[in-house]
Amino acid sequence: MTNTPFAALPEPPYYSVIFSSLRTEGDDGYGRMADRMVELASGQSGYLGVESVRSADGFGITVSYWSSLEAIAAWKSATEHRIAQETGKARWYEHYEVRIARVERAYGKRS
Amino acid sequence: MTNTPFAALPEPPYYSVIFSSLRTEGDDGYGRMADRMVELASGQSGYLGVESVRSADGFGITVSYWSSLEAIAAWKSATEHRIAQETGKARWYEHYEVRIARVERAYGKRS
Repeated sequence: MTNTPFAALPEPPYYSVIFSSLRTEGDDGYGRMADRMVELASGQSGYLGVESVRSADGFGITVSYWSSLEAIAAWKSATEHRIAQETGKARWYEHYEVRIARVERAYGKRS
Repeated sequence: MTNTPFAALPEPPYYSVIFSSLRTEGDDGYGRMADRMVELASGQSGYLGVESVRSADGFGITVSYWSSLEAIAAWKSATEHRIAQETGKARWYEHYEVRIARVERAYGKRS
């Protein structure tokens, strides 16, 4: 873990998973799982980085970045992640949307 | 404005602008501009929707969705938006990253 919320990414193209979610009430094991998933993802082949934010009202956006669609598919089917996905569907998320997108251009400003 | 933080989007493909940013201290006109930019964007040709969240520590992610790269380019060069971009660079954002990505697949879960 670094102390910046920004992912350090290579030049495009690469892929992103845009995960928008609305949490249910209460933690219910969510925080521990979320930390573990970041740790697990960052050890996956093709993982490039992640940016994540959640507001106090429970809505959050996490964007993870990957070198290929194959790397995203492998991450989606990783056993421990599948268990988290199922628990998320059943307990942690009222609503979520996943969009898989190919990053074609990137630029930014650092102070 | 609707009462859900989720964008209602058509079937892919479409395009997204993933805007990650770290705010400077204080409001300094930011809140009013942000509201105005959402209003302005939603009137642009090719605008599909937006999802946005910022945490108390000042880090935020806004993802806007568009029908084409041309629509994104037109939005980027809209006069009032260009002024906001310049002011953002100079005053509102310590750091930001923009990634333009083509959404190829989408799925979700609603309670």
